[in-house]
Amino acid sequence: MKIPPVKGTRDFYPQEMAVRNWIIDGWKKVSLRNGFEEYDGPIFEYLKMFQIKSGDEIAEQLFSLTDRGGRELALRPEMTPTLARMVNQRINSLPRPIKWFSVPRLIRAERPQKGRLREFFQWNIDIIGEDSVLADAEVIFTTIDYLRRIGLTPEDIKVKVSSRKFLAGFLKGLGIPEQKLGTLYVLLDKSAKLPADVFEELLIEQIPEKTISDKILKFMVEQSGEQMDDLIGPNDSARSALDEIYQVFEYLKSMGVSDFCIFDPGIVRGLAYYTGIVFEVHDVVGELRAICGGGRYDNLLADFGGPAISATGMGMGDCVLEILLREKGLLEKQLPQAQIEYFVACVDESFKEEAVQITMELRSKGFAANFSYKSTKLGKQLKQASESNAKKCIIIGEEFKDRILVIKDMATGRQEEMEQDKFFAGLGKQ
Amino acid sequence: MKIPPVKGTRDFYPQEMAVRNWIIDGWKKVSLRNGFEEYDGPIFEYLKMFQIKSGDEIAEQLFSLTDRGGRELALRPEMTPTLARMVNQRINSLPRPIKWFSVPRLIRAERPQKGRLREFFQWNIDIIGEDSVLADAEVIFTTIDYLRRIGLTPEDIKVKVSSRKFLAGFLKGLGIPEQKLGTLYVLLDKSAKLPADVFEELLIEQIPEKTISDKILKFMVEQSGEQMDDLIGPNDSARSALDEIYQVFEYLKSMGVSDFCIFDPGIVRGLAYYTGIVFEVHDVVGELRAICGGGRYDNLLADFGGPAISATGMGMGDCVLEILLREKGLLEKQLPQAQIEYFVACVDESFKEEAVQITMELRSKGFAANFSYKSTKLGKQLKQASESNAKKCIIIGEEFKDRILVIKDMATGRQEEMEQDKFFAGLGKQ
Repeated sequence: MKIPPVKGTRDFYPQEMAVRNWIIDGWKKVSLRNGFEEYDGPIFEYLKMFQIKSGDEIAEQLFSLTDRGGRELALRPEMTPTLARMVNQRINSLPRPIKWFSVPRLIRAERPQKGRLREFFQWNIDIIGEDSVLADAEVIFTTIDYLRRIGLTPEDIKVKVSSRKFLAGFLKGLGIPEQKLGTLYVLLDKSAKLPADVFEELLIEQIPEKTISDKILKFMVEQSGEQMDDLIGPNDSARSALDEIYQVFEYLKSMGVSDFCIFDPGIVRGLAYYTGIVFEVHDVVGELRAICGGGRYDNLLADFGGPAISATGMGMGDCVLEILLREKGLLEKQLPQAQIEYFVACVDESFKEEAVQITMELRSKGFAANFSYKSTKLGKQLKQASESNAKKCIIIGEEFKDRILVIKDMATGRQEEMEQDKFFAGLGKQ
Repeated sequence: MKIPPVKGTRDFYPQEMAVRNWIIDGWKKVSLRNGFEEYDGPIFEYLKMFQIKSGDEIAEQLFSLTDRGGRELALRPEMTPTLARMVNQRINSLPRPIKWFSVPRLIRAERPQKGRLREFFQWNIDIIGEDSVLADAEVIFTTIDYLRRIGLTPEDIKVKVSSRKFLAGFLKGLGIPEQKLGTLYVLLDKSAKLPADVFEELLIEQIPEKTISDKILKFMVEQSGEQMDDLIGPNDSARSALDEIYQVFEYLKSMGVSDFCIFDPGIVRGLAYYTGIVFEVHDVVGELRAICGGGRYDNLLADFGGPAISATGMGMGDCVLEILLREKGLLEKQLPQAQIEYFVACVDESFKEEAVQITMELRSKGFAANFSYKSTKLGKQLKQASESNAKKCIIIGEEFKDRILVIKDMATGRQEEMEQDKFFAGLGKQ
């Protein structure tokens, strides 16, 4: 009975696992050095929790399940609703600002394609309880801190920053009613992904007045300050949002990462819950989906039954990131090589038990050590030691009758003899 | 709209996350030093994969789901079927013995109770492709290597070892037919968990002949060699299995862990797929469920469509382990304290941007650093530095106009002044 794996999932053999561990370890290290604390929630929650605020795209991709009590549950497609629930539960005892990170396994019932799987890992960082755009800048800094650490440069990636508040101010200034904005965001978010004519057609379906839809089209690609000034005209709400964007760029400059960042009003984000600064990181070549994205979501905690507390955050999946790193040749040369400290070989079967004993004593003292199940010829065992990337090989032979170990340095090939007790006494404990 | 978490799941706030990370990091370190490589599989597989060999108990606890294509899937309740599938897929290219470990999140639709949740983490180690009971001994050693490392002693826990082959040989010697063994294993596995009279009654339901059921009852609690000799009589298959058990104990002795281990014929294991040596680790007080268990399962790979290759392994969940560690007072004193290297304070708002700049430069160089969002009085910031367990505090004040940093050692309270460039030049890179 041979059963295949499910499409859109991954098997992590040791080689693939090493890549996943390297990516996730980097996320964790950078989060910690930026002052974020790790948290996690359950992999399933009540179904309705993911239907409140996530927007249609995610709600359509839910994997739902029913427990024995008939309760409707769903596997988490994103982390933010769980974060909101957890923070709300302890809102009075958690010191603010709350700076948390997580690296959840997320599940979406998508059609698998390049960079999109049904199961993936996502780095989440969030700052809750800080109104200042300094928090938005810190989230962007932390994102870049990671991407720069793994070797990506401003020639490889760009952080595109805009503001949902700015876009909302502009659209309302054009006379578009509040209740129409949600649908419009979902469409505008697709502007860069759709062919220009298809996008224009879809926009005209929503906004039949050509003078208005033309202004929106222009806005989405505009990046010069002057032209933007003309476009938004005397619109206080858009203007104050624009000032916020400028403020973020000033912070990013003093943080030393402005060479990665550009203002791009075309950045909208699909999710319904954003309220302020939003950003996405894209590869400069532009062939991949966004590497990550995030922004401010000041109403979400209240939407989940908590008080009105500001929040801003970022999510980065592992799939697109890995594709980019492979394309840039940055993965293989940075992956740490598996290594053991000692390989214990024996000259023949009669010393097998001693080899096992020495191996286990080394392990007990904290050293990575291994032996061969097959008491093959010494040369074969030394080959196995070399293949398992051992630093040293201990050879158990006739000398062992006088408690003498032969220790071979695998890099230099040099051998020395040492009395067993003296050897272990000199090791200390790792 | 306030939605609660689902019963039987856990929220990992930073404090609980620290415990989980400490447990899992220990599992990983001990696995690596014992020569195991890490792997993982998807969190869901085809439903039927978990219905083949897991036994009724696990099959009843499956959380199933259906994808958009109508395929029946299930969340993994254990790791071994995925392991068998993955190994079978690459059986010809993987060098043997395969020594792999994993720390999967597992999900079971159980009724939540002490030490049993619907979602938990489980350490799995497996050796595939090695017939010798030395492999069983190595699995047991690795298990003890971890438990000993976290401070558990032979006074706290016992590793109870027996053999499914031994039990099968004994039962068949009593004339019990092969096809009855599966149901009997599930019952015998419960012997220690059920009140003696209830167990006896259930056994008599299965085995109405009193002379036979009496022998089984006696067998389950017998530990002396002589009495066991009498019980099994001239039964070749039971005798050779007993020799194997003795051989395992010899290996455990030379590995230096025999003080943790006892022979206990009452150890059966509920799962259907075991074929040889089986073991469980129990707390000596005996109030908790088994801390972990494992054994040999030589037919499983073939059952999943692969060749007949021997295998032996162990699984340890995090829930019972954590309860035991708390009861023994071993958790709190071993948990590493969160710490940052630098806290950057400023004497007033006018130096805020400089404080942010210095913080980000430290982070970029690999140091854990933080600052205060609120430019409160210096004393308050120093208190925050102390609460976040900072080693040093950098104070930005009037001196900074001459690029001078004031650096306070938080342990000694001593302050020194240093030129900014010199400070950063002296840091190196972490």
